[in-house]
Amino acid sequence: MTASGFCSSSPEPSTTRALARYVVQARYEDLPPTVRREAVRTLVNWVGVAVGGSHHETIDRTIRALAPLSSSSHAGVLGRTERFDILNAAFINGVSSHIFDFDDTHLKTIIHPAAPVAPAVLAYSEYHHVSGAELLNALVLGMETECRIGNAVYPDHYDRGWHITGTAGPFGAAAAVGKLLGLSEQRMVWALGLAASQPVGFRESFGSMNKSFNPGRAAHNGMTAALLAAADFTSSDQMIEAPRGWATTISTKQDYDQITGELGRRYEAAANAYKPFACGVVLHAAIDAAIQLRNRFGLKPDQIDRIALSVNPLVLELTGKKTPQTGLDGKFSVYHAVAIAIIEGAAGQKQFSDRAVRDPAVLALRDKVVPTSDPSISPEQVDCHIALKDGRTLHQRIEHAIGSAQAPLSNDELEAKFLDLVTGILSPAQARRLLDTCWNIEKLPSAAAVVEAAIPPHD
Amino acid sequence: MTASGFCSSSPEPSTTRALARYVVQARYEDLPPTVRREAVRTLVNWVGVAVGGSHHETIDRTIRALAPLSSSSHAGVLGRTERFDILNAAFINGVSSHIFDFDDTHLKTIIHPAAPVAPAVLAYSEYHHVSGAELLNALVLGMETECRIGNAVYPDHYDRGWHITGTAGPFGAAAAVGKLLGLSEQRMVWALGLAASQPVGFRESFGSMNKSFNPGRAAHNGMTAALLAAADFTSSDQMIEAPRGWATTISTKQDYDQITGELGRRYEAAANAYKPFACGVVLHAAIDAAIQLRNRFGLKPDQIDRIALSVNPLVLELTGKKTPQTGLDGKFSVYHAVAIAIIEGAAGQKQFSDRAVRDPAVLALRDKVVPTSDPSISPEQVDCHIALKDGRTLHQRIEHAIGSAQAPLSNDELEAKFLDLVTGILSPAQARRLLDTCWNIEKLPSAAAVVEAAIPPHD
Repeated sequence: MTASGFCSSSPEPSTTRALARYVVQARYEDLPPTVRREAVRTLVNWVGVAVGGSHHETIDRTIRALAPLSSSSHAGVLGRTERFDILNAAFINGVSSHIFDFDDTHLKTIIHPAAPVAPAVLAYSEYHHVSGAELLNALVLGMETECRIGNAVYPDHYDRGWHITGTAGPFGAAAAVGKLLGLSEQRMVWALGLAASQPVGFRESFGSMNKSFNPGRAAHNGMTAALLAAADFTSSDQMIEAPRGWATTISTKQDYDQITGELGRRYEAAANAYKPFACGVVLHAAIDAAIQLRNRFGLKPDQIDRIALSVNPLVLELTGKKTPQTGLDGKFSVYHAVAIAIIEGAAGQKQFSDRAVRDPAVLALRDKVVPTSDPSISPEQVDCHIALKDGRTLHQRIEHAIGSAQAPLSNDELEAKFLDLVTGILSPAQARRLLDTCWNIEKLPSAAAVVEAAIPPHD
Repeated sequence: MTASGFCSSSPEPSTTRALARYVVQARYEDLPPTVRREAVRTLVNWVGVAVGGSHHETIDRTIRALAPLSSSSHAGVLGRTERFDILNAAFINGVSSHIFDFDDTHLKTIIHPAAPVAPAVLAYSEYHHVSGAELLNALVLGMETECRIGNAVYPDHYDRGWHITGTAGPFGAAAAVGKLLGLSEQRMVWALGLAASQPVGFRESFGSMNKSFNPGRAAHNGMTAALLAAADFTSSDQMIEAPRGWATTISTKQDYDQITGELGRRYEAAANAYKPFACGVVLHAAIDAAIQLRNRFGLKPDQIDRIALSVNPLVLELTGKKTPQTGLDGKFSVYHAVAIAIIEGAAGQKQFSDRAVRDPAVLALRDKVVPTSDPSISPEQVDCHIALKDGRTLHQRIEHAIGSAQAPLSNDELEAKFLDLVTGILSPAQARRLLDTCWNIEKLPSAAAVVEAAIPPHD
């Protein structure tokens, strides 16, 4: 805008209103091809983790609690046969997609962008007609909204104790569902205000089911906000930036330009990242090196004498468990992760099962893993030497682990991750069909086809 | 506990666990008679404001948004014929009860204790059998839980911008519904953890429908927490007090002894207060004085020459509007409030209607109201001199306005408030029956009778 704009009769809109105006006006045709492509990859990854988590006991318990209360059946649970009203379906699918902590990551804020947004727009698409392109546009706008708001308060807000996916997430779900509802600017302002009023979750929840609850409830909250605003339920016009509104109450840092700067030109959604391995990113470089050596040399466990790793000190601090007892424990053991990676050539959710951490072959190999802390190694790096019984030593250095911004997952790798998560819950043929449906989302006349393709014929 | 207890094998339980243990173990028989009596009065007051608000446009809009999503019909909306699932019914009734800002107040924290708790336990009572005494016990335990947690962080938490009824409220609803569900101690710990994860609302919402949203959503959130915990959905064992849990993230003040001190001996619920007038407490002394003089001398407006008030400076700061245009404006006008009190002998919701503030008789009298700020007068006090045209001057000084802790509403005054709110929405005979049902709650075999009595035969 021009300098004279500051004196015109149309003053700068407030932060909340400027964001609302952008979301209301933004069209799918305006999205750059790179952003559209990343939105499709986000959907593929999210559907994979949601179906993958759908038979975890967390979801069994959620359904046990909520099924008696919800007798409407507009929307499905991915990977299952139960049906719910759209708010509860959004909640359950949001929980499901975060259970393995294997969903996408906005690396600047460590928000998991899809978990609060994708389940809300998909549930809505089963209720009112939404085309595939409309769904992608809403998904991008939801991710933009939550990640930009996250940027405005990160890191203080997260350091203080908030689970940022649960606190920024309601904005994303409200913007995305509000877009599908065709809200006016004023109603979108109210939707954002009602979403702001419902932050979810603290970091103390990590390690319990409450962690997955947070993004699921964020989806529920944002969707509720949009539905109420559509019926003219009012809120403040400036809930994000007012002195006793969201940002000042919830954070000591507020950088509103992160929210409204370069709207429609800078896309946070374009930088979404997908984990190749079902554990913390701090382990990814070591696993990456192990798999590369295994595949290049056709390594078998009984050839190996010793696996020496130079790792960033965080690796032993966070994942130093020598004798993990459960699958979840295994995610905090560099010994287990590297051993299973050599044996199976993968580190998906199956490699962190209770069975896997008790497998005698894994136990034998993990004793040969010898990590050494080296502050000169960054968390994205590793230096790996595998000494073989025949006297050879194999070497692999990783500068940027796969899945990082510099080495994003390829579409083929995303497919492999998806099929690994989904197959078993769906038949191989149905898993493939679901994958194809996701890749083709842009062309789908009805986005509801995604959920339909994710429901098994029977449990 | 004894000093040696600190060295025993059973260490002091954490704050969250100690509170959960108390709620799980507390019996109705343990409640002192004064607490039981106050719980009944709380119910009477809450049902009155909930029915009173039920035909406000806020509720019309809420129902328009949610009715298409909720096809189950376990629970009613007080004052209306629509039915919803228990979570949405709790939400709607919670919103309804706060619309006029005429509900109860825990004066230490300005939490409105019933709004998040009463709608949750009443909705649950329509779903599974709950006796009247069980409902009262759950109501008290919910109020204890939220007010004690509020005490622990007030005033910092409120000063910072949080709407404390919406942030402490989910704990109250979770404890109360969890009690009715018969949760074990561990499940109650999880219910409190999931409730903690869902604080609602900022003070920036004041002046919009979002303000009433907050207690309603708090009811929904706490009930959701209890239902999930009952199905073994897990949370942290110490969400309230952990370093990255609720209290440290949400407040700079944490006084945990306020939560666990004298459990079962000190009752916050015993100090619940009820507003006699449908406006801010800062106006209550002036209205009280005006009504007392009116009634004692049979005053008519045309006798009056001048109404001189010495008031605390806050009165003019907060309620100095000379020419209010709407009923809501009238709540911020000492001129209107005193004039209508003289004319009608009341200051309920009807006296703050759009019609009332435009009544020519009120306009004529409000010009004769002359308030003067006097810092030596406390907000609970007023000094009122009414000069009559016949030369007499009438005087009334108020030390503690009616509705304050020192001058609580009598049961008769509560009845008058209730009937004024409810009659018109229900027939006079049904309003009376509903009131009797509330007074008799302790003896009711089924607490669901309260909601049944509050549903009109047709809208």
